[in-house]
Amino acid sequence: MHLSEATWTDAADAETDLALLPVGSTEQHGPHAPLGTDVETAKAVADAAGDAYDGEVVVAPSIPVGIAEEHRQFSGTLWVSPDTFRSYVRETVASLASHGWDRVVVVNGHGGNVPALGEVCETISRHDAAYAVPFTWFEGVGEHRSDMGHGGPLETALLRHVAPDLVREDRIEDAREGAAPRWGEWVSRVNLAVDSAEFTENGVVGDPGEGSRERGEELLALASAALVELLEAIEARDLGALGR
Amino acid sequence: MHLSEATWTDAADAETDLALLPVGSTEQHGPHAPLGTDVETAKAVADAAGDAYDGEVVVAPSIPVGIAEEHRQFSGTLWVSPDTFRSYVRETVASLASHGWDRVVVVNGHGGNVPALGEVCETISRHDAAYAVPFTWFEGVGEHRSDMGHGGPLETALLRHVAPDLVREDRIEDAREGAAPRWGEWVSRVNLAVDSAEFTENGVVGDPGEGSRERGEELLALASAALVELLEAIEARDLGALGR
Amino acid sequence: MHLSEATWTDAADAETDLALLPVGSTEQHGPHAPLGTDVETAKAVADAAGDAYDGEVVVAPSIPVGIAEEHRQFSGTLWVSPDTFRSYVRETVASLASHGWDRVVVVNGHGGNVPALGEVCETISRHDAAYAVPFTWFEGVGEHRSDMGHGGPLETALLRHVAPDLVREDRIEDAREGAAPRWGEWVSRVNLAVDSAEFTENGVVGDPGEGSRERGEELLALASAALVELLEAIEARDLGALGR
Amino acid sequence: MHLSEATWTDAADAETDLALLPVGSTEQHGPHAPLGTDVETAKAVADAAGDAYDGEVVVAPSIPVGIAEEHRQFSGTLWVSPDTFRSYVRETVASLASHGWDRVVVVNGHGGNVPALGEVCETISRHDAAYAVPFTWFEGVGEHRSDMGHGGPLETALLRHVAPDLVREDRIEDAREGAAPRWGEWVSRVNLAVDSAEFTENGVVGDPGEGSRERGEELLALASAALVELLEAIEARDLGALGR
Amino acid sequence: MHLSEATWTDAADAETDLALLPVGSTEQHGPHAPLGTDVETAKAVADAAGDAYDGEVVVAPSIPVGIAEEHRQFSGTLWVSPDTFRSYVRETVASLASHGWDRVVVVNGHGGNVPALGEVCETISRHDAAYAVPFTWFEGVGEHRSDMGHGGPLETALLRHVAPDLVREDRIEDAREGAAPRWGEWVSRVNLAVDSAEFTENGVVGDPGEGSRERGEELLALASAALVELLEAIEARDLGALGR
Amino acid sequence: MHLSEATWTDAADAETDLALLPVGSTEQHGPHAPLGTDVETAKAVADAAGDAYDGEVVVAPSIPVGIAEEHRQFSGTLWVSPDTFRSYVRETVASLASHGWDRVVVVNGHGGNVPALGEVCETISRHDAAYAVPFTWFEGVGEHRSDMGHGGPLETALLRHVAPDLVREDRIEDAREGAAPRWGEWVSRVNLAVDSAEFTENGVVGDPGEGSRERGEELLALASAALVELLEAIEARDLGALGR
Repeated sequence: MHLSEATWTDAADAETDLALLPVGSTEQHGPHAPLGTDVETAKAVADAAGDAYDGEVVVAPSIPVGIAEEHRQFSGTLWVSPDTFRSYVRETVASLASHGWDRVVVVNGHGGNVPALGEVCETISRHDAAYAVPFTWFEGVGEHRSDMGHGGPLETALLRHVAPDLVREDRIEDAREGAAPRWGEWVSRVNLAVDSAEFTENGVVGDPGEGSRERGEELLALASAALVELLEAIEARDLGALGR
Repeated sequence: MHLSEATWTDAADAETDLALLPVGSTEQHGPHAPLGTDVETAKAVADAAGDAYDGEVVVAPSIPVGIAEEHRQFSGTLWVSPDTFRSYVRETVASLASHGWDRVVVVNGHGGNVPALGEVCETISRHDAAYAVPFTWFEGVGEHRSDMGHGGPLETALLRHVAPDLVREDRIEDAREGAAPRWGEWVSRVNLAVDSAEFTENGVVGDPGEGSRERGEELLALASAALVELLEAIEARDLGALGR
Repeated sequence: MHLSEATWTDAADAETDLALLPVGSTEQHGPHAPLGTDVETAKAVADAAGDAYDGEVVVAPSIPVGIAEEHRQFSGTLWVSPDTFRSYVRETVASLASHGWDRVVVVNGHGGNVPALGEVCETISRHDAAYAVPFTWFEGVGEHRSDMGHGGPLETALLRHVAPDLVREDRIEDAREGAAPRWGEWVSRVNLAVDSAEFTENGVVGDPGEGSRERGEELLALASAALVELLEAIEARDLGALGR
Repeated sequence: MHLSEATWTDAADAETDLALLPVGSTEQHGPHAPLGTDVETAKAVADAAGDAYDGEVVVAPSIPVGIAEEHRQFSGTLWVSPDTFRSYVRETVASLASHGWDRVVVVNGHGGNVPALGEVCETISRHDAAYAVPFTWFEGVGEHRSDMGHGGPLETALLRHVAPDLVREDRIEDAREGAAPRWGEWVSRVNLAVDSAEFTENGVVGDPGEGSRERGEELLALASAALVELLEAIEARDLGALGR
Repeated sequence: MHLSEATWTDAADAETDLALLPVGSTEQHGPHAPLGTDVETAKAVADAAGDAYDGEVVVAPSIPVGIAEEHRQFSGTLWVSPDTFRSYVRETVASLASHGWDRVVVVNGHGGNVPALGEVCETISRHDAAYAVPFTWFEGVGEHRSDMGHGGPLETALLRHVAPDLVREDRIEDAREGAAPRWGEWVSRVNLAVDSAEFTENGVVGDPGEGSRERGEELLALASAALVELLEAIEARDLGALGR
Repeated sequence: MHLSEATWTDAADAETDLALLPVGSTEQHGPHAPLGTDVETAKAVADAAGDAYDGEVVVAPSIPVGIAEEHRQFSGTLWVSPDTFRSYVRETVASLASHGWDRVVVVNGHGGNVPALGEVCETISRHDAAYAVPFTWFEGVGEHRSDMGHGGPLETALLRHVAPDLVREDRIEDAREGAAPRWGEWVSRVNLAVDSAEFTENGVVGDPGEGSRERGEELLALASAALVELLEAIEARDLGALGR
């Protein structure tokens, strides 16, 4: 059930304690992919998993602005502070839980959100009346994972599958030419770069040419299957261990 | 230009200092209208005005969860605290302004957001590097305004025009029967009710039967025209008076 | 019972759950009316209603500094941020409630406080051990309401009745000459002005010459009667609906 | 110049950078002295010093609710948290300073406010555009100081001088009988008591019978003279040492 | 039991509700004494008292950075804001209390921490599941107290006893020559100085030459005896008065 | 230069802009290793690197309490909230930077601190007058990294080398028997466990028997060499890219 489209009476009829909360980011994804890439992909994975799960799952509306200050030099990038982002997610989850949907997966499409989502989900699970975990879709795609980049093979592939009109095919060549081979500037496993503009000229990391539509289809299948498996485990999990 | 769909290179090419930030709420709108009504309507008005305005306007992604705790007893209603909502809007506006789009209209679809948006826009205009004002679409529809209600004539009408599939026509009769004639319980012009559940049984205020698609078309025309006029005034306004 | 003048033993004897908390502002009111106008008037209305109410009502000391940054260009105007103001009111109400006076009317004399008081009273009523509502005196004066202005007819009239020495009669002429006809600069029902100095030269809105002492007497009678009616309704109100 | 009674035009004419901000507390002072004692006395000292100082001094309105949770068991005691109190004082001082009155003495009537005022004045002087120091009147009365108590000799004496009607003479005997000889329960110079109710039955510490009107007159003279001397030193002080 | 050196299984075996939390400061103490003086001394007193107390006491690790902005002009001085310091202490105490050690003495070595520790311990005792009091070691040394200074007789003496290698004996002469005779610049019992650099050239107050090792030995004996007495009183204290 | 032991005059003489801030945690490390393990190890690595680096480096005192609520069920574990931890680190770094040491490595000994340190260092580098990066020692030990565990091979080894007295050799057998093979309970690469007590009986993860003193010596050499390399890179780095 998509909450945005349901009425409150539909919502009241939903018999489940599972909810998905897609969160993304509005930020540069190179010259060829839209600023909304991370919302689009998070939503696509949440939708696919919601459909595939054998049982009712509430899908909340997608949170469009996340933690993306690292891309601030690229026009159109929006961001809020980690504190504000955590509060926004935490309180939204609390309102979901108030209706009985108190096992929540935050379905994430943006690497920059990962640490804050880990923190806020732990806070929720320990101190609020809900259990929450984050799921970042490109962590759930098996071997493809190592190819992530930024605006690179995986995101381009998934977009080509779920929102092909948003990919500027005529700029793919530019995108790969200005791309950085890897994220960050590393010494002793520490990234010395503060912003992405320090290491990528056009905002891209990795080769978007490696992101075919077919690969996108596979990525969606893998990620949504991983999320379904996660939903099953959460539904089955005994939360008594948390002292509830 | 819709930011979610544009690339950063498109955004960098935009020659404007005007931006629209749609904000809504995910909350009960009776048995006949979707929980996402206030996002849908805010977005529709922002889009229409962005199209009609003679010049470039950046349209940011819509913020889906607002201040709606007053509807908490109705299933599916989501909300954040006023503090968190203000921070989320303020920081999003600041990131818009960082790219040069520093004259921002927050296009609002929800009455419960109005006081907080007034406050945060004043804070932004006085203390941040941007000028922001809130525009609530149903304030910009002339005489229709007095008919607002909740899930009532105006919202039902506008939805029938912009998202007819989301209106449950077969529940309109139920909706009008359980509706309250007016918002709140008033003594000496003070509303004694804390939550909407204290005065409306099914969440509706006003008669959704009075909300035809034709009326919705007129509402969109009126609201978007008012917003265009506002954009023109803001574009022309000398902000030197703020001591910048 | 005026708390400032009572002893704690008197307070312990008070058999009521009703309290009034006057809040004002210290801010410009033109060349003819004192900076303390909004405190003086709020206190006068609270006192009159406390006297007129048939039963015990605790009257707390008046909070003198509110939300008035909009008048910052006029010398002597004091203000705190909305966050600080809400905290100060909320915690003061909580301490009133700790003594059993947990039905509280915040009696307000300043338009700039209205949104923040609405928000904080809702927060108190939903989340704290008290029920609170705001009452702004010039909302409770019937048809006079439309004449409000700033340092205009209503405030000048009420001051002439309750604190005539504080009105500079010899500057009334100056006051009306430099006055603005209305508050704000409006386009599409949105006020584009951030500060009052953008639209009023001497800080006045409306004609203070229209504010006779007799009118002030009537205003006090109307406002205090409205407040008494509100107290009666609050005393009688079943708060079980809040789930207490 | 008393800000509450002045107009903004009067305030604009004031040629000074000195301001006094009286702060008190609304809290139990035994069965014989009013809850407003600390506001009344702070205001009296500020007024007397303002009159006696040879030059213009702006006197701000008195802040009536301070840090008094230690008296929470006694009816009528009001309090806010130290954080809120500091914010309220800091922001009020900032608005005073915005008009050029940037050397501010916070004139305090309540022991419980002392640590927080020390902290906030240091914060202001180091980080804001103002210089502020706290002056607690009963610290400026020479040898009398050791007699302070609570609702005891000094406060009773000063009240008898400045507000005799507020002292319940017929309860003085009760007051002294239930009084504690000293404040707190001490081991190794640490006060183990958290609240005053742990060591005083009726809220009084010290013998109010030792507080004659004549003594009150002397206290006011001493305290206001000390405050005048402080104003002179502050006016003369070179603040360049703060790096301004 | 020193928590840092114990294992969790040792900790689980501890049968006590008493804990000591040493807090210091890293700040200038003249040319002869180390920046860590206040941590070293607080720890020494806590250790000695922990050893001398007839029963089990948990000694937590020492908090090394406190409230010391007043020394900011002297190189090496570290500080956090009072808000952050209070939160750090409060939450650390809460975690101690979660293991059953809910009667806590914060053993303090720095004057600048005193007001904030008083405030946070009251907050803890009133609102958290613990009882906490602050003990500042140089308050517990009888008549020596009046000699405190800064980097002066008492601190130099105690260091010579507990950490003689950290005292630069060859700079004592310099230290006394550049020392100020007293702390602050006082008018009407108000300190007009904001930072210590305004009244001491080399950071020292008082004569470190008056601080022999023998005196240090006596100071440690006095302070730890006072702390043991405090622990005994706290262990015996009935906390029912707090309404637990 | 160790700040705790240096005087301010020594500090003023230091010619460097490099500082190390060790941060640890006081938390369970099984029945055989001390609660202070993460402080001890962070400090050892910082000290070794400070010694090995060819140039001056300021070493700040170690922060002993971090983010460790996940171990709350094990006695003796202390923790503060992520917000408080970030503030404590951020403000400490700001005071380091105020003395010219504005290139700071936070040397970390605890996995639970990693996300918060990443966030706060980015905040510092973008918004404060300093550049800061986190270095977690067990990330800098090459292939050993995969053996980390908790109270397992690496920490036991390093302790045996730097603080052998703190390792309870007679409990190693118990430690390995009750140990979990890996950290967490994973589904779709998401850890479903909220606290460590959900998956480890005695708090240990990995086999401490695999942690010989010799291995500890090698770990210290590897980690400190990696940190030295990091210091060299930071010293050489052009921070102009941050727009300073």
